[in-house]
Amino acid sequence: MRLLCTLEYSVYRVFALLFLGRVQLIEAEKLLAIPLDGSHWLSMRILVESLGQRGNQVVVLAPHSNIHIHPSENYILRTYPVPYSKELLKEQMVKSANDVFTKRPLLDKITNMYQRITNVTGIVFSACQHLLHSKEIMQELQESAFDAALIDPFFPCGMIVAEYLHLPSVYLLYGLPCGIDRLATQCPSPLSYVPRHFTGNTDHMSFPQRLKNALLWPVDTFLCNLLYSPYAQLASEFLHREMTILQLYSQTSVWLMKTDFVFDYPRPLMPNMVFVGGINCVGEQHLNQEFEKLVNSSGEHGFVVFSLGSMVSEIPMNKAMDIAEALKSIPQKVFWRYTGKAPPNLGENTHLVKWLPQNDLLAHPKARAFITHAGSHGIYEGICNAVPMVMMPLFGDQMDNAKRIESRGAGLTLNVLHMTPEDLSNAVRAVINNPVYKENIQRMSSLHLDRPIHPLDLAVHWVEFVMRHKGAPHLRPAAHDLNWFQYYSLDVIGFLLAVLLTALFISLKCCTFVFRRCFKRNSKKQRKSKSQ
Amino acid sequence: MRLLCTLEYSVYRVFALLFLGRVQLIEAEKLLAIPLDGSHWLSMRILVESLGQRGNQVVVLAPHSNIHIHPSENYILRTYPVPYSKELLKEQMVKSANDVFTKRPLLDKITNMYQRITNVTGIVFSACQHLLHSKEIMQELQESAFDAALIDPFFPCGMIVAEYLHLPSVYLLYGLPCGIDRLATQCPSPLSYVPRHFTGNTDHMSFPQRLKNALLWPVDTFLCNLLYSPYAQLASEFLHREMTILQLYSQTSVWLMKTDFVFDYPRPLMPNMVFVGGINCVGEQHLNQEFEKLVNSSGEHGFVVFSLGSMVSEIPMNKAMDIAEALKSIPQKVFWRYTGKAPPNLGENTHLVKWLPQNDLLAHPKARAFITHAGSHGIYEGICNAVPMVMMPLFGDQMDNAKRIESRGAGLTLNVLHMTPEDLSNAVRAVINNPVYKENIQRMSSLHLDRPIHPLDLAVHWVEFVMRHKGAPHLRPAAHDLNWFQYYSLDVIGFLLAVLLTALFISLKCCTFVFRRCFKRNSKKQRKSKSQ
Repeated sequence: MRLLCTLEYSVYRVFALLFLGRVQLIEAEKLLAIPLDGSHWLSMRILVESLGQRGNQVVVLAPHSNIHIHPSENYILRTYPVPYSKELLKEQMVKSANDVFTKRPLLDKITNMYQRITNVTGIVFSACQHLLHSKEIMQELQESAFDAALIDPFFPCGMIVAEYLHLPSVYLLYGLPCGIDRLATQCPSPLSYVPRHFTGNTDHMSFPQRLKNALLWPVDTFLCNLLYSPYAQLASEFLHREMTILQLYSQTSVWLMKTDFVFDYPRPLMPNMVFVGGINCVGEQHLNQEFEKLVNSSGEHGFVVFSLGSMVSEIPMNKAMDIAEALKSIPQKVFWRYTGKAPPNLGENTHLVKWLPQNDLLAHPKARAFITHAGSHGIYEGICNAVPMVMMPLFGDQMDNAKRIESRGAGLTLNVLHMTPEDLSNAVRAVINNPVYKENIQRMSSLHLDRPIHPLDLAVHWVEFVMRHKGAPHLRPAAHDLNWFQYYSLDVIGFLLAVLLTALFISLKCCTFVFRRCFKRNSKKQRKSKSQ
Repeated sequence: MRLLCTLEYSVYRVFALLFLGRVQLIEAEKLLAIPLDGSHWLSMRILVESLGQRGNQVVVLAPHSNIHIHPSENYILRTYPVPYSKELLKEQMVKSANDVFTKRPLLDKITNMYQRITNVTGIVFSACQHLLHSKEIMQELQESAFDAALIDPFFPCGMIVAEYLHLPSVYLLYGLPCGIDRLATQCPSPLSYVPRHFTGNTDHMSFPQRLKNALLWPVDTFLCNLLYSPYAQLASEFLHREMTILQLYSQTSVWLMKTDFVFDYPRPLMPNMVFVGGINCVGEQHLNQEFEKLVNSSGEHGFVVFSLGSMVSEIPMNKAMDIAEALKSIPQKVFWRYTGKAPPNLGENTHLVKWLPQNDLLAHPKARAFITHAGSHGIYEGICNAVPMVMMPLFGDQMDNAKRIESRGAGLTLNVLHMTPEDLSNAVRAVINNPVYKENIQRMSSLHLDRPIHPLDLAVHWVEFVMRHKGAPHLRPAAHDLNWFQYYSLDVIGFLLAVLLTALFISLKCCTFVFRRCFKRNSKKQRKSKSQ
């Protein structure tokens, strides 16, 4: 059934791509893509390449010093100078990974995290300043007459560029850290069943969990300020008009959200939110000879894929030794993406590789489990290929992602700081040997893959739609034109209350008046009768 | 551009249908369709025929006396006996049309409308009772082992059958009269920009309009009671457990909504709401010889299509004469769907026809305007084919539909009771000769047609999805498991308020205590110093 389904949609997609591609070539449009470096770029690259292959002219605007954004025949890479080197970025990555794997007291941990966030945001912000102040590049962009901008909205630099160039835009995102996406889309998110980021809550919450969900808004506000407040000032200065962060974020035409309701919890949506979870699962390729050989030698036990994502490829030696110890004890072959020094206790079944074709390996019938940091990319590759997961979330949304998979019974979560080698080997054995995990991930996979159009084609459609129609104003809710007082109908409620109270007051006055008159008349009568 | 777009999606659809159809035939599923007679059936018929053509076994369950539901080679029609004749239904239809075209004082109008609604609901309810109490049919249905039910939810009889047979279900609807769809989907609908039915409001409302929007809930509650309260009792009796109407409505897996945001105003949605507006525009066919000849003889002025829908094919003679008078004065040929006695003043340009291929005529390049009652079917055929409209809403949602088209500048609305022949001829001339109407409907049409998948294919996909997976529980929001107190977090707010008040109270007590102690000490000191 699953194979049939996969086959069905692969061929369906080929038909669609072939035909849509042919028509589109007649009138190519011009797109400005403003990505964010790191793992975020991986899915935008797939979309941008696809748009380029369909004959659109795509210019990718990226800082000169970056880690993952390389040239391609399907787009023009336009870089701009930044005041930091690629080496500094790599250093930061290694430092971040080391920090995550180091045990610290709570207060120290928070200070450290704060420092890490301000370092990263400082780097990104300085890149943004350099871009906006480069007259040469901004003029070149203005002269290029793009039809739309495709933006990674994690930091709001792309929006300032799009506003400056008067371009309609499309965002590609998984979610934004402080829930600003919900505010900017005007999407109602009842606190009673829509879990906030970083709470680890599911959609079914107990009273204390709902309390935690409600109480987390100061954290969100703090995070929003930390991440975004400098951009509001930068945008206002650069665009010569007052701009709030919410105004910047709410200008976009379409939000392409890299999730779906097989993975995420059902919640209200808005018409300009398009769900493209699984955009990165673009069908398996043939494995190269090296991996083909390794995979075939894995025997009946099959193999396990292990990666902590594109940003963490080496970890402290003591943790690496713990992990090597655990992996040694399982009968499967393990492919571990690791660029650091090999731990001395590495088992014979464990192969360290500098890079691995993650999706293609997971698509192999011998893939038994996937040890992952629970980044949204990896999670969707696990779902697409129905491979149960052992998750070691490190930072950001990864804790929430792991919770979602765990709550569906399709994987197990470990705490990287506190886990022992036994914990890891037990978890891997459990997801492989207990059929419940495989059944659950298979059910998730069959639901996820049963869709009328591949998420990549859907994303391509909407980017091209915005280019063709110069935006999508028909999807913009009128809520954007109301202030919060009007949005919550507080003026209407106030007016109705005033009318009600006035009516009550008048009725009361009338009653009192009538009562007094009657009373007076009665007492007069009484006095009269007494005097008679 | 529009032609290219249409071509693109037609061929894309053919590919999709061909391929999906071929795969689907391998494992046919069994569907029970429970339609409603009248215009509602027209779009369900298209969907049901399509599902049948793809190899699914479809049984359509309908009352023996009906007007539009006929047998087809693509489904099995199973009828059940009802205590009324087809003639009674036709009589009711003619009476309803006459009522709508008769001027009455307000109170009389309301009484008349109430009577009309109770007549119709009485007929439908008696049919439902007969179906549920027919042991033979219910047993036959139970033995048929369907995979899912496709239901027109305007009246909740189908849901009782689906509940009894433990079938997952899909609803096909445009909207429900008293907003019960919003309650049953748990979809937030802020009163400040989501207009209620029958208000004639758009999404941009002034303060009085928002007030009207808020004040209309008693009307909604009254309508809900009038239409649905007998079904709750019937369901509880038949299913041998307590059932509210909301419980009945909220059981479904997917809501196929026959609208989109080119026509409707953007508002929040839920994950199990799928928008299939335009499902009835399935590409033009060749006109038959009779119409081909008429159309070709229309000359440079082209022609106008005029229909008041499948339910109103004749109207009182005085109104018919007014309309004939107006149509006589325009230079276009007019095709008027009309089964009544021809008005004596009928112009030579006006052709009365008992039936017309509405979509195919509107798709003809010589179609200049569409005079319609603003039913959702007709409206979408107007949008698909980019023909500006003159709308004469008669009842139900038609006033709101007309408002939507008018607020987009793509048509004009007339009041059938008060319009003069001049009003009608002026309106038709305006939408034909003022290019703004054509431009606006063309823009709406190009947005509506620019979609990655045809609404009919999308609807087919979701019905088959529910059949394949026996429902879609992953799309059901957790809000269904909360009571209203929890949903609005009133318990959390209450708790936080209690904590805040307690903290305030304790602080106040402490302050008072400290203040008193200080004050006492001071006064003691003062007394001491005085005594010394």
